[in-house]
Amino acid sequence: MRTRVADFVLSLQDKIVTSFEELDPSAPPFLRDSWKRAKGGHGISCVFQLPYGYDKPTTLEKAGVNVSVIHGTLPPAAIKQMRVEHASVPYDPQAEAALPFFAAGISLIIHPRNPHAPTVHANYRYFEITAQQAEGSEQTEQPEVLAWWFGGGCDLTPSYLYEEDAVHFHRTLKDACDPHGAQLYPAFKKWCDEYFFITHRKEARGIGGIFFDDLCADPHKRLPNALEESTSERPWTKEDIFSFVKSAGEAFLPSYLPVLKRRADLEFTPEQRRWQLVRRGRYVEFNLVYDRGTKFGLLTPEARIESILLSLPSEVRWEYMCEVGTEESSEEAKLLAVLTKPREWL
Amino acid sequence: MRTRVADFVLSLQDKIVTSFEELDPSAPPFLRDSWKRAKGGHGISCVFQLPYGYDKPTTLEKAGVNVSVIHGTLPPAAIKQMRVEHASVPYDPQAEAALPFFAAGISLIIHPRNPHAPTVHANYRYFEITAQQAEGSEQTEQPEVLAWWFGGGCDLTPSYLYEEDAVHFHRTLKDACDPHGAQLYPAFKKWCDEYFFITHRKEARGIGGIFFDDLCADPHKRLPNALEESTSERPWTKEDIFSFVKSAGEAFLPSYLPVLKRRADLEFTPEQRRWQLVRRGRYVEFNLVYDRGTKFGLLTPEARIESILLSLPSEVRWEYMCEVGTEESSEEAKLLAVLTKPREWL
Repeated sequence: MRTRVADFVLSLQDKIVTSFEELDPSAPPFLRDSWKRAKGGHGISCVFQLPYGYDKPTTLEKAGVNVSVIHGTLPPAAIKQMRVEHASVPYDPQAEAALPFFAAGISLIIHPRNPHAPTVHANYRYFEITAQQAEGSEQTEQPEVLAWWFGGGCDLTPSYLYEEDAVHFHRTLKDACDPHGAQLYPAFKKWCDEYFFITHRKEARGIGGIFFDDLCADPHKRLPNALEESTSERPWTKEDIFSFVKSAGEAFLPSYLPVLKRRADLEFTPEQRRWQLVRRGRYVEFNLVYDRGTKFGLLTPEARIESILLSLPSEVRWEYMCEVGTEESSEEAKLLAVLTKPREWL
Repeated sequence: MRTRVADFVLSLQDKIVTSFEELDPSAPPFLRDSWKRAKGGHGISCVFQLPYGYDKPTTLEKAGVNVSVIHGTLPPAAIKQMRVEHASVPYDPQAEAALPFFAAGISLIIHPRNPHAPTVHANYRYFEITAQQAEGSEQTEQPEVLAWWFGGGCDLTPSYLYEEDAVHFHRTLKDACDPHGAQLYPAFKKWCDEYFFITHRKEARGIGGIFFDDLCADPHKRLPNALEESTSERPWTKEDIFSFVKSAGEAFLPSYLPVLKRRADLEFTPEQRRWQLVRRGRYVEFNLVYDRGTKFGLLTPEARIESILLSLPSEVRWEYMCEVGTEESSEEAKLLAVLTKPREWL
């Protein structure tokens, strides 16, 4: 499974990056940055960013499409922490043992330039915890897998609400989920609304999508759990779950590209650009204050900070008591209404 | 003491805001925003911010000078949390009782427009926890004070390092501290370097100043603690501590204004502006990820988010693998060298 997931995310990354480059051939290409991790593993960061002061029109303003395939050892504290979210992680408080792990995933974020075009984020990953191998045993031996799971999701963050975009995005994700179990989209749509919530602002980061974690062969707290209920409502085997994750990952381009294409060249005013920059401030607030992945990354010694914070937009604005959005019938207020009260789009 | 601290911070706020307005008379004035807290207390937020796209030259880009004088009830969880930092806070795990509190303080942050002029932050506050009053007792009765302390500090965050500015700033703060005890400046300078540290970047937020908390009549973990050692090395009584805090607060304008005046009108290039915006990104990272006051504020239900996040600069930039500062002999690298290894300025 390790190799298959790694192959999948690398090939998806290539397809995604190529698609964005083909969409806007006159823009600077993505920078492709291969890296190795001293403690085990490698990755490719594909980054789009405009030089400071760049004034030719482009579709994107900043984008990052990262793949990482890493392995190493989880210290007991990290295992204990992980157990809170992942019941299947073996943890013996007496043993205080470190355990080997493997993780492979793709993580992407696209910040377009036009305020009418939404930001999008997606992330799919596979995680394994394996038994300590006896000293002197061959590195190439297949270690015993003690726990494994998939996680991921995809969500949209517009500055201006176009209902047809929201419906298209959710519809494409639902169509990718449904063949793998009727329960997946409703459960993961709800989870997404709950997860991407900026508590101190009392508003969602965006208009949602899907979010899931800890998906493995065990019962899941957010899915019908008794095997008897209906095996068709969720994927149970590692093979079936990987198949679901592939469908979701492959749905990214069809869910987002048509939206981007119809918004990227719309005219916009300086006020609309201002509103976009203020909304990006909220994006930064969520990522730095709440996002589990970001927080975990910032706390990890020797983590690659530049890759973790690649999610942050290039230009951001904070205003005290910003009056944009306070006028009841404005387009900005229309967005805020949806962020305050998540909607069923389908 | 409540009234005296409240009077002090209100008068200091007025003096500071007036000084900035006199420094740049053609700029828009500060907005003065008085507010009342539903659960008890009031405050004044004085805010300077430029309208989006404002293109006339001004000294400041964004500034907030807040005073709050609030009282209310601390739930048991908050008391327990507070006890970690403040040993004198009474906490009976059995009782699970809420306790009344009072807090008065001034908090300010100044982001100038010119990349050569440093950002500055200061904050001085008094905190009291009092006994539950018997039901039916007069609200005007003086409640018994169970614990009290002062906290605060002042620190400078340049984008470009001018050693004479750093020396002047630290010298002025030290001169304000010394008459109240020779141990104060060295202990609080060190604390400041430790506190304003962006762990994930392995660099300080700025070039320091002073930082202190939990200063009361009890022994203090960062000061000579046995009364016998030397009473002259720190203030011990509430009166003496308030007197120290007043000196520190009054040192703000003389520590900062001369620096601002000599840097505010220097010429700068777009590259230098870019570097300032990138440094502001680090400021946001510190405030949202590490700053105790900000984190506590964001977690407080019904907190005034606009006042808490007033500290964030108006324009900010994040770049992936920003190459500015990587050239060894550059002015940007000179700043980074100091941030990586805090210096004794005096």
